[in-house]
Amino acid sequence: VNKENLTLLMVNDYPDYIDPAEWSAALRIRVPRLEFRLWPERGDPADIDIVMIDKGTPPGFFEGMTRLRAVVYLGAGIDGLLLEDLPPGVGVVRLATRELASEVVQYILLRMLYRQRHVADYATQQISRIWRPIAPAKINETDIVILGAGRIGGWAARLFTELGYPTAVWSRHPKEIANVASFSGPSTLKEALAGRDFVVCTLPLTRETRNILNAETFSWMKRGAYLINVGRGAHLDELALVKALDDGQLSGACLDVFSTEPLASSSPLWTHPGVTITPHVASYWVDSGIGQVAELCEQVRSGSAITNLVDLERGY
Amino acid sequence: VNKENLTLLMVNDYPDYIDPAEWSAALRIRVPRLEFRLWPERGDPADIDIVMIDKGTPPGFFEGMTRLRAVVYLGAGIDGLLLEDLPPGVGVVRLATRELASEVVQYILLRMLYRQRHVADYATQQISRIWRPIAPAKINETDIVILGAGRIGGWAARLFTELGYPTAVWSRHPKEIANVASFSGPSTLKEALAGRDFVVCTLPLTRETRNILNAETFSWMKRGAYLINVGRGAHLDELALVKALDDGQLSGACLDVFSTEPLASSSPLWTHPGVTITPHVASYWVDSGIGQVAELCEQVRSGSAITNLVDLERGY
Repeated sequence: VNKENLTLLMVNDYPDYIDPAEWSAALRIRVPRLEFRLWPERGDPADIDIVMIDKGTPPGFFEGMTRLRAVVYLGAGIDGLLLEDLPPGVGVVRLATRELASEVVQYILLRMLYRQRHVADYATQQISRIWRPIAPAKINETDIVILGAGRIGGWAARLFTELGYPTAVWSRHPKEIANVASFSGPSTLKEALAGRDFVVCTLPLTRETRNILNAETFSWMKRGAYLINVGRGAHLDELALVKALDDGQLSGACLDVFSTEPLASSSPLWTHPGVTITPHVASYWVDSGIGQVAELCEQVRSGSAITNLVDLERGY
Repeated sequence: VNKENLTLLMVNDYPDYIDPAEWSAALRIRVPRLEFRLWPERGDPADIDIVMIDKGTPPGFFEGMTRLRAVVYLGAGIDGLLLEDLPPGVGVVRLATRELASEVVQYILLRMLYRQRHVADYATQQISRIWRPIAPAKINETDIVILGAGRIGGWAARLFTELGYPTAVWSRHPKEIANVASFSGPSTLKEALAGRDFVVCTLPLTRETRNILNAETFSWMKRGAYLINVGRGAHLDELALVKALDDGQLSGACLDVFSTEPLASSSPLWTHPGVTITPHVASYWVDSGIGQVAELCEQVRSGSAITNLVDLERGY
């Protein structure tokens, strides 16, 4: 078989943890002669070897895809897939995206609790053998807002709520999450941010969300709020953050993503006492997802057996 | 009214986060002339002013309790209460025990993730402006066992499972928790500990569990396992732990409870590089629960209105 060119169509309705641009760039490096198309720019369906989808597909989606060999499903279950439309002989491959989302959710929990439970202070006390309990803020008096309510943001919101924290989400469209206040659209951002002790950014990067964490939105936050950014570096005005920290408007920030990565050694963020920096590791294993797709591309190209197939009868 | 003596009967079927001895001691200090009784040592039911219960009550439990004013319910919901047996005019008071359990669950999550996600290493790297991702162990290759599967242990097990970690519990009686392996009884402890990357102790202190974390059980653990103890100090042989850490049998330990508290400055635990110490703060606000009951005792004694009453019609 050994096809010269390979065409992959990505459909991404739910882009809070998968950035099509990132995947496109990473796959092009790993897979020679790959044509990467992003829905709805489908092009000629007869070219398409592989489809990556995240939720469902519209009726008739697969029509004309005569060359299709595999559907990569980015979701945790395959409930969303319109299986009756799937051409016979096409394999469905599941990525471990639940694990990828879990990694980021864990990062958010960890960094929020690190702050909330005074981990750094206890470490300092231990050096001097000091036994001194430090009251954490009460759970029901600690308000959290999560910007972005997709797989990651929604999951984090449910966990914080289960643990007893008053939690809100802000997203483009209204979300229904039990016991979580939902704000949607730019006009509600000020209200969504007001009074929160923790502001967590899990947003996808879009024209509307670029630079959303800036001097003005910091001024809408509760004085002393703590910021966690696991979205993208371009969500944050880094200089405005330093100023907000110096002014005491924000009490601290944990940043995993930056406008330029690796973060330049000259950045004032490295040494700012209120800033915790991690080197884009909230989802360390996202590379393994890209690696799985690159491997699939080679299998399709060489006509060899496809691995990680979903058993459609069992549903997983 | 102003009763001279006050009698409180505690029923504690589920003692994984509430230690009757601790409550008895703390309440006696705060409430003068309090007689504290622990079920099944009920004594004369006509003496009893206040009952504290944790799950349900047997039929006829309230018979003869002619002086009863209040039932303190330690659970999260009141489903377990046999309301038809409750004498009329007796108030039901709910303690914020869900929040207390949540605090400990959060501590466990925090300390496990602190280790798993290399928080200390990133802090060190930041000082030198080093941008270097460090691979966390993969989620599905990180095994956790939780000793004790009550409210805290069971909750933590469910959360770790939801996040994708292979999780087991070990407890006196078998537990059914979805996707969690359950081991029960002393004969299964060796198997329950074998191969786990994290061992979390949430056990109540009983004759059977005293000193359960000792040289022999350390030898059953996976080489390099990490221990988290939020049970009681008497669960752990501290000298054996230091030896297991020095030998490399354990890679580290996070301890919140100690055989003597405050931990003596002379303890080698303070300065051991593998040990993280916190001053019994996994459930910082347990004192607020005791405070709520002390307040209730004064209300009953003075015949004043009882606060924090559950609305039995609404069920919470």
